[in-house]
Amino acid sequence: MKERVGFMGLGIMGVPMAANIVAAGYSLTVYNRTPGKEESLRKKGARVASTPRALAQAADVIIAMVTGPEALNELLWGEDGAAAAFTGEKTFVNMSSVSPMFSRELARRLAPTGVAFVDAPVSGSKKPAENAALLILAGGPRDRVDALAPLFQTMGKRVVYCGEAGQGSMMKMMNNLLLGAMLEAFTESVQFGRTGGLSLESMLEVILSGPLSAPIFQMKVPMVKEGSYPPNFPLKHMTKDLKFVVDTAYETGAPVPIGHLLLHLFRLGVGQGLGDEDVAAIARVLENMAPGSGEVASSPSQ
Amino acid sequence: MKERVGFMGLGIMGVPMAANIVAAGYSLTVYNRTPGKEESLRKKGARVASTPRALAQAADVIIAMVTGPEALNELLWGEDGAAAAFTGEKTFVNMSSVSPMFSRELARRLAPTGVAFVDAPVSGSKKPAENAALLILAGGPRDRVDALAPLFQTMGKRVVYCGEAGQGSMMKMMNNLLLGAMLEAFTESVQFGRTGGLSLESMLEVILSGPLSAPIFQMKVPMVKEGSYPPNFPLKHMTKDLKFVVDTAYETGAPVPIGHLLLHLFRLGVGQGLGDEDVAAIARVLENMAPGSGEVASSPSQ
Amino acid sequence: MKERVGFMGLGIMGVPMAANIVAAGYSLTVYNRTPGKEESLRKKGARVASTPRALAQAADVIIAMVTGPEALNELLWGEDGAAAAFTGEKTFVNMSSVSPMFSRELARRLAPTGVAFVDAPVSGSKKPAENAALLILAGGPRDRVDALAPLFQTMGKRVVYCGEAGQGSMMKMMNNLLLGAMLEAFTESVQFGRTGGLSLESMLEVILSGPLSAPIFQMKVPMVKEGSYPPNFPLKHMTKDLKFVVDTAYETGAPVPIGHLLLHLFRLGVGQGLGDEDVAAIARVLENMAPGSGEVASSPSQ
Amino acid sequence: MKERVGFMGLGIMGVPMAANIVAAGYSLTVYNRTPGKEESLRKKGARVASTPRALAQAADVIIAMVTGPEALNELLWGEDGAAAAFTGEKTFVNMSSVSPMFSRELARRLAPTGVAFVDAPVSGSKKPAENAALLILAGGPRDRVDALAPLFQTMGKRVVYCGEAGQGSMMKMMNNLLLGAMLEAFTESVQFGRTGGLSLESMLEVILSGPLSAPIFQMKVPMVKEGSYPPNFPLKHMTKDLKFVVDTAYETGAPVPIGHLLLHLFRLGVGQGLGDEDVAAIARVLENMAPGSGEVASSPSQ
Repeated sequence: MKERVGFMGLGIMGVPMAANIVAAGYSLTVYNRTPGKEESLRKKGARVASTPRALAQAADVIIAMVTGPEALNELLWGEDGAAAAFTGEKTFVNMSSVSPMFSRELARRLAPTGVAFVDAPVSGSKKPAENAALLILAGGPRDRVDALAPLFQTMGKRVVYCGEAGQGSMMKMMNNLLLGAMLEAFTESVQFGRTGGLSLESMLEVILSGPLSAPIFQMKVPMVKEGSYPPNFPLKHMTKDLKFVVDTAYETGAPVPIGHLLLHLFRLGVGQGLGDEDVAAIARVLENMAPGSGEVASSPSQ
Repeated sequence: MKERVGFMGLGIMGVPMAANIVAAGYSLTVYNRTPGKEESLRKKGARVASTPRALAQAADVIIAMVTGPEALNELLWGEDGAAAAFTGEKTFVNMSSVSPMFSRELARRLAPTGVAFVDAPVSGSKKPAENAALLILAGGPRDRVDALAPLFQTMGKRVVYCGEAGQGSMMKMMNNLLLGAMLEAFTESVQFGRTGGLSLESMLEVILSGPLSAPIFQMKVPMVKEGSYPPNFPLKHMTKDLKFVVDTAYETGAPVPIGHLLLHLFRLGVGQGLGDEDVAAIARVLENMAPGSGEVASSPSQ
Repeated sequence: MKERVGFMGLGIMGVPMAANIVAAGYSLTVYNRTPGKEESLRKKGARVASTPRALAQAADVIIAMVTGPEALNELLWGEDGAAAAFTGEKTFVNMSSVSPMFSRELARRLAPTGVAFVDAPVSGSKKPAENAALLILAGGPRDRVDALAPLFQTMGKRVVYCGEAGQGSMMKMMNNLLLGAMLEAFTESVQFGRTGGLSLESMLEVILSGPLSAPIFQMKVPMVKEGSYPPNFPLKHMTKDLKFVVDTAYETGAPVPIGHLLLHLFRLGVGQGLGDEDVAAIARVLENMAPGSGEVASSPSQ
Repeated sequence: MKERVGFMGLGIMGVPMAANIVAAGYSLTVYNRTPGKEESLRKKGARVASTPRALAQAADVIIAMVTGPEALNELLWGEDGAAAAFTGEKTFVNMSSVSPMFSRELARRLAPTGVAFVDAPVSGSKKPAENAALLILAGGPRDRVDALAPLFQTMGKRVVYCGEAGQGSMMKMMNNLLLGAMLEAFTESVQFGRTGGLSLESMLEVILSGPLSAPIFQMKVPMVKEGSYPPNFPLKHMTKDLKFVVDTAYETGAPVPIGHLLLHLFRLGVGQGLGDEDVAAIARVLENMAPGSGEVASSPSQ
């Protein structure tokens, strides 16, 4: 028999994820701190809880998909928080993006309730969430993660088991470090070539026809061509993840020279008002550094 | 009727490229500064010139594929150099990797001979050279580049026209800046994750199943798994190309923050004796920075 | 009449600072978490408290000089913690090095006790502590800071008022960012010159006779000459401070490109076992990057 | 008896240097490519040569103080160039700032003339040039450098012998790497503190009263206070020197992580139109990165 599911956090990601759960025939209860988002889900058959605690009481598996530690703390330990209803029979799945350190702290704080804790951040943004094509990065007790497979498959195309609780977040940091580097390098390279007189079309032909041709580049081509960056994955979220990377590397001692540089550059972007644009707007940070770098500049010796 | 082709420079790339030309039915003359490499080509039907000048006299299209400016200068303007036999009816195609600046200087120096100058560096290493699957980045007079299409197709799967002479080199720098960044970021991310307790297998599953999955990563997986880096594209050549990138960016004013960082890191690799290993050996530079970073290290506050 | 002073934290810095206070005729009570350090002070006339709470009860001004937030939290809010005895008539002065954020959090947490909170980290290491030549960077209510001037002058040669509580820490971060950059740049420049064939003596003559001649360079000359780095200011403490800088810049949006690079480099040093050596041992991190860089290396094109 | 001196290059530095030579009683002949600058020197007793060659014929010691390799090449080997009149009895002293590599190339090209070649770039800008307070960094045959001591002392307060020809330039690069790093770090630290709410006055008090207090900081205080950067040492010249540093480090393998970062940042400054302002205008590059960083910005998590 299917678990009763509770879903907290009905944002850009949460609404389509919850919709996919209910569409798969699960009994679903939802909760959102600011009301209004739950209506579309109610129409699809979800119940609406009045507090996180009520939601947790009515569910076997409680999922959270919120913006960060603060929201999570409030949902779990705020007034009528969910944690008060956690028991050894229930499973709490945090799919919000947090640092590995915060995730391990969550595990510690939740231990006394007996709840099974799984961290399962996702790779993929709005569209994959709608298409149930997310990549789910799961950390926690292996048997619980395995048992959640059918539920995860309503939301994602693939689940990767990453280790104990916290390792899902670690995997997401690893992946987003690479993502941030690839996008910065892509826009840096293209701007370098443009300043050197190459056409955008010829550069894209070279990049996309050879071994560097990652799907992410193809996805960002319209943004690069039009110089307009409607958000799939907001630049400020990447900035936050890069801070987690630097914090984690400080703890573990992993050398992340590009990680440090990226944190510097993306944080500049937030300060320049690009936080709500797509992560590919890092291109703008480079353009702002060299106002005339769209044209061939004169050399410093002249 | 097919042009008579002359090919100078029989190294790792030159031999298979020349072999593909002669296999396509072109009349081919070859020359190499240090003898011994031409034997396999002679057997396939190529003639061997005793000097660059003799080669140039016997050919309509003269191709050079050597290690850099020094070798090129010697072949063109050294004793019995090829340039002495250049005329307005001939085309000189430099496929060696040089800086855009050197390429433009070549164009200037060759102008008095009347020869048509095309720069056409390639993207792709040994295997694509053997399989006639190189990507050819051509700069020079459009009509000459178009006329060379059949000849280029014996060596490569695609020709991208990049603009005037020198722009082929510019395109290659652009592409290799992105390549270098992607490989450094790939190995940095994987080492970051490993230090944080993730398994290599789970990380590769995540990277290779999502939007970051570039063919270049797939190609380097065996090296990363075994920690052994037999050269496809030697790290020292990438280092040289990154120097060209920084030199060019200094002239044009393009901001290349990752380019500067990469030059620092890859040059360390050369100094650490990794120059003749594959470019993916940049992973070793990071490992050398943090000897114990394969294990979870203690935090600096402890 | 002089305030009764309590001093918690009898480390390398704390012992000489406390000794200077008692030598100036103040009534002094001391406490240290691990016993044994208080003996020399007892002989000079200090009393020894058995708990932080007892110390706070016996003093008007309570000073803490410990290694960081963890120790501070324990002294203040651990078993028999000092905070339980704080009142509106007392002043708590944190001279430990913490982040501006932690300092502001301290202020918030202490507010209910009514205690006046002053943060007053110092610039200067062991020797200036002994010679009462510290530079004291004070944040908090102006009148309280002013009232503390006679007490501060027993420990330091100068007090700089930095603003509200937390701004003393901000000033220390600012100063240590510059200190870290100067020492890294000093050793980087000297290694650059040495690799290029310059003698250490001639370089020091140039640096120390011109406008770059900061006293800190003069102080580190013996270390650089002997390649041995007995700790004045341990490298791991600088690393911690640079983490504070990056954390703070992440909050405020200040661009700290050198700060990010320094955090990377100094953290490498900790991972390489240099954490307990002097901060000038950053020279070793650079040497480890380029094992043969004491000799003139061959160029990568060879 | 005093040598007859020839001085080529009458710019911001050259005019006061030449004036000091003639004031010391030397027989002086001057030459400048663009006429008009020699008038003040003629009044002081200098003769004016009509060509570099004529100047070289009339002098025992020929000094060049020009903007770089191009100007130097023209003066030496252009029409009526000075090199044609060089002999084994004469000494050529290049005081212009060039790369160590160019300096060694100069030595090679001059060898056939038999002239003694000394490279002697200076540390110090306009004011020290006027006050005969330059620091002279001399490379070349030791006996010739020693013999030049009285002449050098008319221009500078100190001569440091750096090794063979080219090593004077190497020393200057080493020194300017440190200078560039110190000024960037100074302005970065001050902007970091200002963004964090510290007053400029309190920060300057801390920096200038402690061990970081280098004379160069004191010299730049008025610029930092007024946010106006009249050139003593133009930012574009520092940029050029940092390019030499990176070029040299590429040859020798010395790790210069800050050097790479500085080249990136200062080159941005040139592209932003700051090349003719003082090198301390690097502060503007940081300000341009974070337009609102004079005020406390909100954190990216908000």
